[in-house]
Amino acid sequence: MLELVLVKLGGSLITDKNQPYTARLETMQKLVTEISLIKQQNPSLKMIIGNGAGSFGHQSAHKYNTINGVFCDADKLGFCLVHQDVLDLNRLLANCFLEAGLPVVSLPPLTMVVTQNKKLVKTDFSVIENSLKAGFIPSIFGDVVLDQVIGGTIISTDSLLVELAKYFHIQGNYQVKLINVGNYRGVYDQNGQVIPEITPANYAQIKAAIGKSESIDVTGGMIQKVEEFLAISDWGIDCWIIDGNIPGNLVEAVLGQATVGTVIRSGEYR
Amino acid sequence: MLELVLVKLGGSLITDKNQPYTARLETMQKLVTEISLIKQQNPSLKMIIGNGAGSFGHQSAHKYNTINGVFCDADKLGFCLVHQDVLDLNRLLANCFLEAGLPVVSLPPLTMVVTQNKKLVKTDFSVIENSLKAGFIPSIFGDVVLDQVIGGTIISTDSLLVELAKYFHIQGNYQVKLINVGNYRGVYDQNGQVIPEITPANYAQIKAAIGKSESIDVTGGMIQKVEEFLAISDWGIDCWIIDGNIPGNLVEAVLGQATVGTVIRSGEYR
Repeated sequence: MLELVLVKLGGSLITDKNQPYTARLETMQKLVTEISLIKQQNPSLKMIIGNGAGSFGHQSAHKYNTINGVFCDADKLGFCLVHQDVLDLNRLLANCFLEAGLPVVSLPPLTMVVTQNKKLVKTDFSVIENSLKAGFIPSIFGDVVLDQVIGGTIISTDSLLVELAKYFHIQGNYQVKLINVGNYRGVYDQNGQVIPEITPANYAQIKAAIGKSESIDVTGGMIQKVEEFLAISDWGIDCWIIDGNIPGNLVEAVLGQATVGTVIRSGEYR
Repeated sequence: MLELVLVKLGGSLITDKNQPYTARLETMQKLVTEISLIKQQNPSLKMIIGNGAGSFGHQSAHKYNTINGVFCDADKLGFCLVHQDVLDLNRLLANCFLEAGLPVVSLPPLTMVVTQNKKLVKTDFSVIENSLKAGFIPSIFGDVVLDQVIGGTIISTDSLLVELAKYFHIQGNYQVKLINVGNYRGVYDQNGQVIPEITPANYAQIKAAIGKSESIDVTGGMIQKVEEFLAISDWGIDCWIIDGNIPGNLVEAVLGQATVGTVIRSGEYR
């Protein structure tokens, strides 16, 4: 079995969400240093990096309401602006990886996903799979996609990573794990305490507590994230939600050591 | 029949080939202004823009000899650097289009092409086709691609545009034309005069004259370009080689007016 870790670097972590088009380059570099360390300690481990759009993608996406469709000429321009904005942020991140000598290859999801009323109807992840097999680190991100009904929409990094986790899990030769690295310590309860473990068994009672806590990640909100991850935990894919600001946290989570954060997994597999 | 024009903006035109990583922004803006004019005069015309890599892609491509394969870790990093470099140049060009209000969408060829010993074995141009149908202007460029035998290689903008010309021609509902916009006035003979027309009938005698002239476009050379275009002229696809420095030249060539330059076409179709 090949070990495959999907790492999500949150938009709120790698950009300043309050300052349009402002990347946190120092944070990016620190995260890349941790990923270099991981590759040194476990050279056979496969990784896919997904990054959120933060204060880059959300400007035009909000202005043109791209997620809800592309109908007129202004919407079309908006669609293209969002694509360019997410490419721009991804480029800054990719440059950090390349400067560290890591072979990260940017692969815009627009070229591999088609939706129908916001639901995925066609995915072709072959270029991600082939890049991975060839020894590259594929880099993806939330992106605009063409939609067969509403013209266009946006697919989030989380949704893409969840699809990729399933895609590689189904093949049977990958042990898949997903690590969500954010600007928050994990999933909080109503008292602001990190919930250490979420399973299908305890989720019903925990959900209310999450709802009462401050939602830290703007895109979709924490409940949506947890539910997307819960759905794949049933497949035996563990998902960690950890704080990327704590040095060493990412290394520990990827290498399976004790980590501060929330793990989402199916109790049935333990 | 839908009219489809594939426009190649040459690397020697939109960058300074003697200065690494130096774009000619003013030239880009002028070309974009011409394309805006074309869209105003013929709103139903479909366009795909391909741009050469110029002094962006050729730096790392040369250093790592990427075209001849990807075998070691350094080659892998080189492959990724070339990809990032061509993305960087494409981004500058795309920004010019977006600033002019044209819905240009960047679609990296790496995600749609696979080669085997430098020969195309898999292409999926559906995202280009769907973007075109949805009213966008797809923007492509010479890019690195994964190769099933030698790990990776480079596919030129010319080769991609020729493949796209065939792809859309075969569908039967597109009248396809290819316009190569360069930093030269056309194909020169041994006396430095522009050859007005090249056909399969006169090519044999013209070839020697081209060989003796200075080859102006570095990538592949003029003979390779002419032969790639001659091959599709047989399909009834006319190819123009024109000078992008002459104001109005691109507008005239696209709209089918008299243009200074070389046209490559099959005599049989006239």
